[in-house]
Amino acid sequence: MSSAPSHPSYEPSSQHEAIIDLLAALAYAELSAFDRLAEDARLAPTLDARARMAGMAALELSHHTLLTAHLTELGAVPAEAMAPFVAALERYHELTAPSTWLEAVVKAYVGDGMAADFYREVAEFVDPSTRQLIHDVLTQGGRAEFAVSEVRSAVAANPAAAGRLALWARRLVGEAISQTQHVLADRDALMVLLMQSRGDFAGVAGLIARITERHEERMASLGLST
Amino acid sequence: MSSAPSHPSYEPSSQHEAIIDLLAALAYAELSAFDRLAEDARLAPTLDARARMAGMAALELSHHTLLTAHLTELGAVPAEAMAPFVAALERYHELTAPSTWLEAVVKAYVGDGMAADFYREVAEFVDPSTRQLIHDVLTQGGRAEFAVSEVRSAVAANPAAAGRLALWARRLVGEAISQTQHVLADRDALMVLLMQSRGDFAGVAGLIARITERHEERMASLGLST
Repeated sequence: MSSAPSHPSYEPSSQHEAIIDLLAALAYAELSAFDRLAEDARLAPTLDARARMAGMAALELSHHTLLTAHLTELGAVPAEAMAPFVAALERYHELTAPSTWLEAVVKAYVGDGMAADFYREVAEFVDPSTRQLIHDVLTQGGRAEFAVSEVRSAVAANPAAAGRLALWARRLVGEAISQTQHVLADRDALMVLLMQSRGDFAGVAGLIARITERHEERMASLGLST
Repeated sequence: MSSAPSHPSYEPSSQHEAIIDLLAALAYAELSAFDRLAEDARLAPTLDARARMAGMAALELSHHTLLTAHLTELGAVPAEAMAPFVAALERYHELTAPSTWLEAVVKAYVGDGMAADFYREVAEFVDPSTRQLIHDVLTQGGRAEFAVSEVRSAVAANPAAAGRLALWARRLVGEAISQTQHVLADRDALMVLLMQSRGDFAGVAGLIARITERHEERMASLGLST
C-alpha cells in the first residue's frame, strides 16, 4: 500500500489508491461529525435547536453511508480504508471540543464548510461516478445554514461575542490544517494527487490557501470579523 | 391544561389534549433515543457496527421530525408539548445507561420495540391523519433488526451471556413501565384515553400486560430465555 512514487507522477494504480484514501478520509470525517454533532446537540438552549443540530448529525451520517457504499463499489473495504484516518480526526475533535452552544454552532458551520471545500477539491480529478456522488452530497440541503441565524442573532444581542467566536473559528481551521498535514505526511499517493490536482506544484500550500480564503468568506457570512 | 375530568369520559377537547400528549411523549422519546443511540454507538467494537447504531439514531430522529410536524398541524407548539415528558425520559436513560456494547444493542432493540408497541396502542384511537403518521413511522425499515444478529452471535459464542442480558432487558422494561406510570399520574386526559382505548377498564394494567407479553416475544427473537 506504500508503493506510491516519491516524485509526482500519474500512475493509475496510485491514483486509484489516492481516491480511495480521499473518500475514506471523508467517510470517517462524516461518521465522526455525526458523533460529535449528536453530542454537541445537548448544549442546545431549546429543544428546537437541539433537534436542528441533531438533524445536521443525521445528514452527515447519510453522507457517510453514501461514501462507504461507493468505497465498496470501488473494491475497498470501508472499515479498513477508513482506519488510517481515525486517529487524526479524533484528535481534531478532542482538541476542539466546544464548551458553549455558540462554539458548537460555529464548529458545525466551519467543519461542514471545510468538508464541502474538500469535496469540491476532489471533485476536479475523480472518475465520473465519484464526481456524481460528491455532487449528490454537496447538493443535499441543510448545510448548517441554521448556524448563520443562530450566530448572527447571538452577536447582535452581544457584540462582544464576535471577537471570541472568530478566534475560536480560527483555531478550528488551524487544528484542521494541522491534522490534515499529519495525515498527508503518511499518505504518499494522496499527497501526489493533491499536488497534481491543479496542474501546478503549489500543491498542499495552495490547497491550504484556498481553504483559508473560503474560511474568511464563511466568517463574513456568520457576521464574524476576522 | 389540567381540565380533564377525574372520571372516565369522552369529551372531544380532552381527547385532543390526550392525543397531543401521546404524540409529544413519543416525539421526545424519539429525540432522546437519537441522543442516547448516538452516544451508545461509541461502544461499538467495529466501525461498521458503529455506523449501524448511528443509522438507527438517525432513523429515530426522522420519526421525531415527523411527529413534531404533525404536532404543529394539530395546533400544538412541539417544544411546549414535549416539556412535561423530558424529565421522565431522561430519568429512564440515566437509570439504564449501558456499560457494554451488547447492553447497548439490547437496549436499542427493546426500546425500539416498546416504542413500536406504544405507537400501535395509540393507532387504535386516533384520527385518520395521525393513524397514517403512525403507520409511516412503523413501516420505516431498520427497526433495530441488526440487534438480533449481534445478540444471537454473541450468545452463540458465549452462552453464559444470555442470562445476564435477559436480566438487563427485564430491567429496561421495568424502568420504562415505572417512568410511564410516573408520567400518567400527572396527565389525567392521557390516562383516561389509555383506559378507554380497549373499551374496557383494564386500562393501564392491561397496557402493561400487553407490553410485557410483547417483550417476551422480543426476548425469544433475540435468543434470550427469560
